[in-house]
Amino acid sequence: MKEIIAIIRMNKVNVTKKALSEIGVCGLHAMKVMGRGKMKVDFYIINELGNKEEIGGILADGLSEGARLIPKRLLTILVHDDEVEKVVGAIIEVNKEGHKGDGKIFVGPVLGAVRVRTGEQGEIAI
Amino acid sequence: MKEIIAIIRMNKVNVTKKALSEIGVCGLHAMKVMGRGKMKVDFYIINELGNKEEIGGILADGLSEGARLIPKRLLTILVHDDEVEKVVGAIIEVNKEGHKGDGKIFVGPVLGAVRVRTGEQGEIAI
Amino acid sequence: MKEIIAIIRMNKVNVTKKALSEIGVCGLHAMKVMGRGKMKVDFYIINELGNKEEIGGILADGLSEGARLIPKRLLTILVHDDEVEKVVGAIIEVNKEGHKGDGKIFVGPVLGAVRVRTGEQGEIAI
Repeated sequence: MKEIIAIIRMNKVNVTKKALSEIGVCGLHAMKVMGRGKMKVDFYIINELGNKEEIGGILADGLSEGARLIPKRLLTILVHDDEVEKVVGAIIEVNKEGHKGDGKIFVGPVLGAVRVRTGEQGEIAI
Repeated sequence: MKEIIAIIRMNKVNVTKKALSEIGVCGLHAMKVMGRGKMKVDFYIINELGNKEEIGGILADGLSEGARLIPKRLLTILVHDDEVEKVVGAIIEVNKEGHKGDGKIFVGPVLGAVRVRTGEQGEIAI
Repeated sequence: MKEIIAIIRMNKVNVTKKALSEIGVCGLHAMKVMGRGKMKVDFYIINELGNKEEIGGILADGLSEGARLIPKRLLTILVHDDEVEKVVGAIIEVNKEGHKGDGKIFVGPVLGAVRVRTGEQGEIAI
């Protein structure tokens, strides 16, 4: 069993949900998070010649530190080990726009699962 | 150390919190999530004879893909290894109604814990 | 790769974010949680002599069970293995006030990471 965590754009929850249904993965939960990736923000001014001129140092660092967190959605999907690849692939397919902020996917271990209604344990509970 | 994650009905947070207190487990955190289990929705129409008639195929799939996420609560409880069984049991006891949507429980590994106030590390920080 | 989860006071998100930026760790996400630590609440009354008198037993237990969850912030930070110590240290430094409720930090394993935009996998995706 694995836990797949995908941090995606707010407006991508529905297409992702649909993409997962299409590959037979229905169980998931979503939550609001405020996130910040490892972005490098480019700061510049338009100089007297009309060209962009980068500014860095203290100013850029100061802005970077205070960089606002962006609202994102975090999806958690519990899957069987052999489903990881197709789930990750399906998430990328509908979330990849080629821009910063497209998101990240993490995979973590799960030691056990229980379905509350039946008490079923293990792979069957996913 | 283990992390127990329980996804339960919104109205079950208080009884679950109480049940955990009663077995001596006090530390937990809760968050709002929108979730969907591996539910199979039964779609039907009432036919001319007044009987239910199942409908499936494209329609059911279409509805299934768009199935709305249901508001749930996700509880995270950090426990010692030997507490996993009793905590899972306590959660099931107060959350099992025998209906779909009763919830799920997952167990994950935790490598380390630190109490910020004291800097204490390891099992003692739980 | 490791996942560092810090449950901190609501008003500590910005200083923590800043402290992490200062050590070169930029990627994180934050969410609202309602939490309760392993606190022992001291209940007392002022007796006829004007002194505090502890009350316990049923009353204290009753209150304890129903103890309200406190709004907190949960930060998740994905880091390389060799960054765990400095990240935990940085979080403690700005969150340690010496009071109950300062928070807790947990470290969990991460098996894989993918940057959606590029498809890059592994350590480079953090």
